[in-house]
Amino acid sequence: MGYALVIVSGDRPAVIECGIVAVPSGAAAALRLLAIADALDTLIRRHRPVALALERLYFNRNARTAMSVAEARGIALLCAARAGLQIAEYTPQEVKLSVTGDGGSDKRGVQRMLPHLVAMDAAITQDNVADAIAIALTHAQRARLTEAVALAR
Amino acid sequence: MGYALVIVSGDRPAVIECGIVAVPSGAAAALRLLAIADALDTLIRRHRPVALALERLYFNRNARTAMSVAEARGIALLCAARAGLQIAEYTPQEVKLSVTGDGGSDKRGVQRMLPHLVAMDAAITQDNVADAIAIALTHAQRARLTEAVALAR
Repeated sequence: MGYALVIVSGDRPAVIECGIVAVPSGAAAALRLLAIADALDTLIRRHRPVALALERLYFNRNARTAMSVAEARGIALLCAARAGLQIAEYTPQEVKLSVTGDGGSDKRGVQRMLPHLVAMDAAITQDNVADAIAIALTHAQRARLTEAVALAR
Repeated sequence: MGYALVIVSGDRPAVIECGIVAVPSGAAAALRLLAIADALDTLIRRHRPVALALERLYFNRNARTAMSVAEARGIALLCAARAGLQIAEYTPQEVKLSVTGDGGSDKRGVQRMLPHLVAMDAAITQDNVADAIAIALTHAQRARLTEAVALAR
């Protein structure tokens, strides 16, 4: 499970930490979920984010993968709820539209745009991490828009 | 989500607590999962069970329901892992076979058998609670069998 913590201050968002939650390989589902919960709790304690943004999940043909993803997703929602975070979900199309201006763009198109939109220390080489940054960025853009709309009332 | 705590001591298992986890109706998924986690944590703290038994989940046609059930299942696995419980899963067929001796029996058949197999204070009127008792009972029977086998070595 890829994650990214993005801070929005000043003109340009910045990635303050990102990576993949390490999960014991071959472990039982419960131990995998425990590793995810502990990692997310630690990240939330360390950075005190205000929101958690997730990809909206659609069921694919592989029921076993879908169930495993849904279980992990339940853990992320629980960690966020326990910490009192706002929770937002975006479809892959919303994320692509937000990052590239085109809801139909491919994964590489999204990854090429990221360095132009968000400050980061190193190039992102893992798809799951790039996805997490793109989702966080989508939320940062929406949140900023919401604030602007609220101020304009 | 139905639950049942079954104690196995002496000849006959007994239900020491059972019910349905109350979930705020119409609440966001994260708050629903938080209510489930808090309820399970409380039950585990109160009764100190040694094992959690769950129905093995199969994906049905309603993807939305399946995802919601998988998320809740992830929470149950996390609560059990955090408390160091053994975790076991049984298919509906295994549960039916264990309770009625016939893996193809229907829900009513299972419910009619329960009072003969497990001591309980009141009649069970909710399907989810009856299911939980049947699953706990299946685990209790297997665990006893495992112990017997271990002693016979």
